[in-house]
Amino acid sequence: MKYIIVGAVAGGASTAARLRRLDEQAEIIIFEKGEYISYANCGLPYYIGDIIKDRNKLFVQTAAAFNKRFNIDVRISTEVIAINPSAKKITAHKQTTQEVYEETYDKLILSPGAEPVRPPLPGINSEGIFTLRNVNDTDYIKAYVQQKHVSKAVVIGAGFIGLEMAENFHALGLDVTVIEMINQVMAPVDYPVAAFVQQHIRSKKVKLRLNTAVTGFTKTQEHIEVALNNGEVLFADVVILSIGVRPDTRLAAMVGLQLGPAKGIQVNEFLQTSDQDIYAVGDAIEFENPITHQSMITYLAGPANKQGRICADNVALGNVRSYKGSINTAIVKVFDMTVGTTGTASKHLKAAGIEHIVSTTHNASHAGYYPGAKQMTIQLAFTPKEGKLLSAQIAGYDGVDKRLDVFASYIKQGKTVYDLIEFEHAYAPPYSSAKDPVNMAGFVAENILLDRLRVFYWNELEQLQSGDLLIDVRRKDEFEAGSIDDAINIPVDELRERLDEIPKDKKLYIYCEAGLRGYLAQRILRQNGYEAVANLSGGYYLWKTCTTEKCLLNKANPILV
Amino acid sequence: MKYIIVGAVAGGASTAARLRRLDEQAEIIIFEKGEYISYANCGLPYYIGDIIKDRNKLFVQTAAAFNKRFNIDVRISTEVIAINPSAKKITAHKQTTQEVYEETYDKLILSPGAEPVRPPLPGINSEGIFTLRNVNDTDYIKAYVQQKHVSKAVVIGAGFIGLEMAENFHALGLDVTVIEMINQVMAPVDYPVAAFVQQHIRSKKVKLRLNTAVTGFTKTQEHIEVALNNGEVLFADVVILSIGVRPDTRLAAMVGLQLGPAKGIQVNEFLQTSDQDIYAVGDAIEFENPITHQSMITYLAGPANKQGRICADNVALGNVRSYKGSINTAIVKVFDMTVGTTGTASKHLKAAGIEHIVSTTHNASHAGYYPGAKQMTIQLAFTPKEGKLLSAQIAGYDGVDKRLDVFASYIKQGKTVYDLIEFEHAYAPPYSSAKDPVNMAGFVAENILLDRLRVFYWNELEQLQSGDLLIDVRRKDEFEAGSIDDAINIPVDELRERLDEIPKDKKLYIYCEAGLRGYLAQRILRQNGYEAVANLSGGYYLWKTCTTEKCLLNKANPILV
Repeated sequence: MKYIIVGAVAGGASTAARLRRLDEQAEIIIFEKGEYISYANCGLPYYIGDIIKDRNKLFVQTAAAFNKRFNIDVRISTEVIAINPSAKKITAHKQTTQEVYEETYDKLILSPGAEPVRPPLPGINSEGIFTLRNVNDTDYIKAYVQQKHVSKAVVIGAGFIGLEMAENFHALGLDVTVIEMINQVMAPVDYPVAAFVQQHIRSKKVKLRLNTAVTGFTKTQEHIEVALNNGEVLFADVVILSIGVRPDTRLAAMVGLQLGPAKGIQVNEFLQTSDQDIYAVGDAIEFENPITHQSMITYLAGPANKQGRICADNVALGNVRSYKGSINTAIVKVFDMTVGTTGTASKHLKAAGIEHIVSTTHNASHAGYYPGAKQMTIQLAFTPKEGKLLSAQIAGYDGVDKRLDVFASYIKQGKTVYDLIEFEHAYAPPYSSAKDPVNMAGFVAENILLDRLRVFYWNELEQLQSGDLLIDVRRKDEFEAGSIDDAINIPVDELRERLDEIPKDKKLYIYCEAGLRGYLAQRILRQNGYEAVANLSGGYYLWKTCTTEKCLLNKANPILV
Repeated sequence: MKYIIVGAVAGGASTAARLRRLDEQAEIIIFEKGEYISYANCGLPYYIGDIIKDRNKLFVQTAAAFNKRFNIDVRISTEVIAINPSAKKITAHKQTTQEVYEETYDKLILSPGAEPVRPPLPGINSEGIFTLRNVNDTDYIKAYVQQKHVSKAVVIGAGFIGLEMAENFHALGLDVTVIEMINQVMAPVDYPVAAFVQQHIRSKKVKLRLNTAVTGFTKTQEHIEVALNNGEVLFADVVILSIGVRPDTRLAAMVGLQLGPAKGIQVNEFLQTSDQDIYAVGDAIEFENPITHQSMITYLAGPANKQGRICADNVALGNVRSYKGSINTAIVKVFDMTVGTTGTASKHLKAAGIEHIVSTTHNASHAGYYPGAKQMTIQLAFTPKEGKLLSAQIAGYDGVDKRLDVFASYIKQGKTVYDLIEFEHAYAPPYSSAKDPVNMAGFVAENILLDRLRVFYWNELEQLQSGDLLIDVRRKDEFEAGSIDDAINIPVDELRERLDEIPKDKKLYIYCEAGLRGYLAQRILRQNGYEAVANLSGGYYLWKTCTTEKCLLNKANPILV
């Protein structure tokens, strides 16, 4: 058998290595249009920020080592420019010699990846404006930053890579501004989770410009002038465009392989394209999302690598293994914070018409009495009937990645909030509490499902009617340090004795700091004949964070440093 | 309804709080023979070691606060000394006043916990010999260590608490010796995992005496003399007895409640004892282990707390919720290391007659190119047919707790190694690799199940026959730095060209450092007509650690510092 693989990063390299393990005799050729194979995409921002100091560490494999170990014919700087599916041939162009030649294949695997979006704005090709996708981009940016003694960076797009670049530029001592078209950072997460991140970014003196678009660039002697849609102009020495990527489907389209509604290469469960001898993996394919059942593209290294292994099995052994789609588990370090998501955010569930309940909890990363415990915020979404988990999003510090992985395992398996309750975690004081934040999120979700807890949300407070009663059940000192307008204060520990202060005919809205005391207050009230009682999900802490961020957003000049 | 709860730590306190949330009108009395309720058992060693500096932090709840918040009648320093099940009454003894009185109940919940084993050795009641179970014990130990200016500590029993005490005494600058009767530390884990821990403990200059029993103590003017079964005598200023605990079933036995084969209080799935009005939770109950189906006692805070919630639901709402048993997920910090287990160790599976395969992998905690990645060792056990996960044990540093929790979620749900492969974790370089250690463990286990990988084990090397060929496939420099006796060196990258050096009629045993290159070598060899090829599970690294530890154990004087 002769296998040709197009693209030698993540998915392509994984496929090649696995193919060799399955078939020692096969001829395997892997084409890579760039100079490097199997490099550490996800490490590139950290090399720019000098967190990774040794450039060699970016290379998981060199072409020579890969060839030696796997007996794979690695052809770098060689682009596959055409496919002839009926003749089962590809045409390759070797950039160094300009040689153009053909190769036949029995099976072809496409792993072309994605390419950064570069909108046709005036001046976008000016010196000092970069996208970051591969090692060459990285080398250019690093050299530019070092040689030009830059001091001001503008990062356009507050997605994962944008925020990583903001952090790494900041680590280099640059003055950093992040510009984002929508009203929040990190589009894949819901607003409340993003609000915590934004607050943290501002605390690092990085300027955030949300709801802001760039209209063009002008390169002057001194600066790059970045024009904004509100008429302002920012001055930058270096600009990173991180507004997104799109699948590289040029080859696929050229041959007439079927593309899907999300404009990626359409594959079946075996990762086979519309041509039975051509398979595809990685950032260029689209697949049914197991939660929304909508076809979507996943730009993540984890799924790409796993697809490589599945694809190799199917190519070598004949469609033996199904790919089941990605739940889009993703995580990012943003300065000291860790933020991540698994499953489908509430806003995307809404857009897909999927009914769900949202619940927010705050818990310590480990036992509060052991040094170093940090708070994390967990937002779950689940179906109102079965309690099936649809997503979990977490913002916090230590231990966020752990809980996200646990939630990912439950969501991947189609489990419910009831399963979270039974999760039997590893507990010792440095690692968790006797009840893990995952258990706690499950307990609260279950209480909602069983109507032991009725909740309302931070953005519903504006809809309270004049006759409604808002009760802050925190301690007096907490209340006095800051509360929600029009709230009265009855600490939960005094509630039983002060029931006569609360009229029975009013709708009661309760809040505490995080949600627990509000829940206890609700239990007391409902068992004392108060029926219309709701508790603020996520508590004052969530409300305060979200409303502060909203407020900054609505100001004429939203820059607070 | 009137509920009486006996024992106000973990299980008892959880039950009480949940009962109140479910039933605002009930009368709830909780008896605690000690002075403190709901304290942080698991934090006690760290308070002794000054890691937790503020004693107040040990108290999750005070009796007064618990009463105020939950309207629960908390009676501390009051022991329940008798139960009259037919009259539904208990007899209480208040220690401060010597008052003895009765209380009736509708439902009684027992949460008596466990008590430390104190074997009847000569001199065991000498001054300076302590067990550690509650706040009083802690206060005594801390005061003794401070006031007596102790410099030498002997910890008897190398279980979780013993090792935590060793670490905390070491943190105080004491010279520490740990004595353990069996041939390894941490009885719940298998030998190879314990071997890594032992190596780490020795690196901290803590002396480990394995396979060693204490025969008695003599208190002299200067020291406590600790006599060992090999005739040696150790000198100590303070001794901690941490050889285990047993369930406190005195009350239960007195009333004739059914005890189980493990000598704990027998409960049904609703945590109800043989008396339908008496429930029990925590360290004193036994329950069917979901993996071995043997009845066992679980001495862990997590399950106790979760049982409390289940028990309260059943008591208040009428047996609505089943307890499903514990998979005994446990973790311990041992100096810089983290070690943990979930499910049933291989040695216990063997003892229970459960057929299983063991597989060991070593992986980095996060992307190797990002600073701070640390290696961890994962040992899985799974069934040979379905690949159902039976246990996971991990020894390492950063990220061990995370993977343990993920494995726990899969084991709890009865999942297989195939599910591990599909685990979609949160990947960014500071947190993981594109293929998580959990995925990698799954890949290797699957390769074994599908006969793509045949393994042998570190303790089988002695059984190699004279005609067998042992091949080290690491690089030459690695081989020369240390290898297994009689091995020849053919680096995997040279294997394809050097096949003629390997006779076809011999059994081949292959190893590399961690296992991956050995697997690749095996794929090459088996596809070149070599059938009898086995790869050393866990590689040279595991073999070296285990054999070094075995060797120390067999020496006359096994103390290496």
